[in-house]
Amino acid sequence: MRVSVSLLPEPEAVSADIEVAVVIDVLRATSVMAVAIAAGARRIVTCRTVGEARQLAAFHGPDARLCGERGCRRVDGFHFGNSPREYAAELVSGRTLVLTTTNGTRAVQAARNAPSLLASSFLNLNATVSRLAGAEHVHLLCAGTDGRITAEDVLAAGALVERLTRLGPVELVDDEPRIALGVYRAALGGARAPDSSRLAERLRDTRGGRNLIREGYAADLDFCARVNSIDVVPERTTVSPATFEARSVSKPASGD
Amino acid sequence: MRVSVSLLPEPEAVSADIEVAVVIDVLRATSVMAVAIAAGARRIVTCRTVGEARQLAAFHGPDARLCGERGCRRVDGFHFGNSPREYAAELVSGRTLVLTTTNGTRAVQAARNAPSLLASSFLNLNATVSRLAGAEHVHLLCAGTDGRITAEDVLAAGALVERLTRLGPVELVDDEPRIALGVYRAALGGARAPDSSRLAERLRDTRGGRNLIREGYAADLDFCARVNSIDVVPERTTVSPATFEARSVSKPASGD
Repeated sequence: MRVSVSLLPEPEAVSADIEVAVVIDVLRATSVMAVAIAAGARRIVTCRTVGEARQLAAFHGPDARLCGERGCRRVDGFHFGNSPREYAAELVSGRTLVLTTTNGTRAVQAARNAPSLLASSFLNLNATVSRLAGAEHVHLLCAGTDGRITAEDVLAAGALVERLTRLGPVELVDDEPRIALGVYRAALGGARAPDSSRLAERLRDTRGGRNLIREGYAADLDFCARVNSIDVVPERTTVSPATFEARSVSKPASGD
Repeated sequence: MRVSVSLLPEPEAVSADIEVAVVIDVLRATSVMAVAIAAGARRIVTCRTVGEARQLAAFHGPDARLCGERGCRRVDGFHFGNSPREYAAELVSGRTLVLTTTNGTRAVQAARNAPSLLASSFLNLNATVSRLAGAEHVHLLCAGTDGRITAEDVLAAGALVERLTRLGPVELVDDEPRIALGVYRAALGGARAPDSSRLAERLRDTRGGRNLIREGYAADLDFCARVNSIDVVPERTTVSPATFEARSVSKPASGD
């Protein structure tokens, strides 16, 4: 398996030979997506602008729910913000969610040329790795914040690289996977795997974490640090608009 | 002291409030600059293109020396390539060197708005830190390779961040300094400071290192890993063309 990483979602990041891309926006878009899909949401339609979100929600009818943030806060008139703690099963089960966030959906668009696209976070590291098993070339795409690299996404990319190297022989492409692995190993401080409280501590000292604490969402950091609490990975089923659904972790047989 | 880092030399990296910028191109431009200045070169004039280099050398007269590489190799007709092992005192002492390299000189140009600009590498970490002591805002600029982040420059940035935090209270701006520090600490593997052989081993597993080994310059990796073997730091004395000279490590008094 070849593994490449983009510490930021440059437009040319996803080359033609990539088999599966993985978008990582730990705080909080891809954590929200995992939680919502695990809570039974039928699908998550992602888009860039608030206007697009309203149009898509109207298209999907009255049961659709508008989700997303600007400047960390719920958009006026939306049903949900971007806090994973809002997405309770009784509120989202069976529904179409239309999600617009500042950085996560930008990364999803940067990865649009990838044949397959997953949404990952600390919540579903192992589910992501199970889905990636057997892929020829995996590309991890960190969302960052407003065009700056953020440590929380690099940490999660490092955690994925580390788990992929345990699966079998891995060729790391260029230096970004090594950088992500180094950041992750330094954060572990010698431990074999992060416990959630140590990880939450690390998240508090990231750009995204500091933003959330300032805006009153400190509890989201503990939530997003619950490593492997979710056993499902959102996978893109429609490219435009980029729509994610729960996919079985076992790879479907091709052909026949 | 505030410390910020760019893992790549984005054009807008150096903001107006930065006091000193530090360009890092470990393999090999800023290592070459340290070696050449320590060997007694009078000045190093940096430029982007081979054509500019020839014009600048003509301007500086017959004692000037043309230096630089394309694709790791010495440019045809130049006196020196980009290997630090070429720059012996008897060949460069007292001379003006005109240097063009692919990534290092690009980073120097990206930092042109910085009031002060240093060239750093593993060879002169401590000399760099001494020169930075007392600055309000230091920005470290990793050169990368062809627009990709390279681990060797991030490692050196991490080494500088670590030493700066030992000097006194440091505010790390955004997540890049934390990422560089994590990569550096992971590479140390628990040691307090890198020994040169361990570091050379690390450099072999970087994008820049692999390129140099492929092109026959493996010995340059050992050379560029000689931590603190040079006690001088090249500092820009003229902005255009960006020209570097040896500067005393003690800060000159301002005013009077």
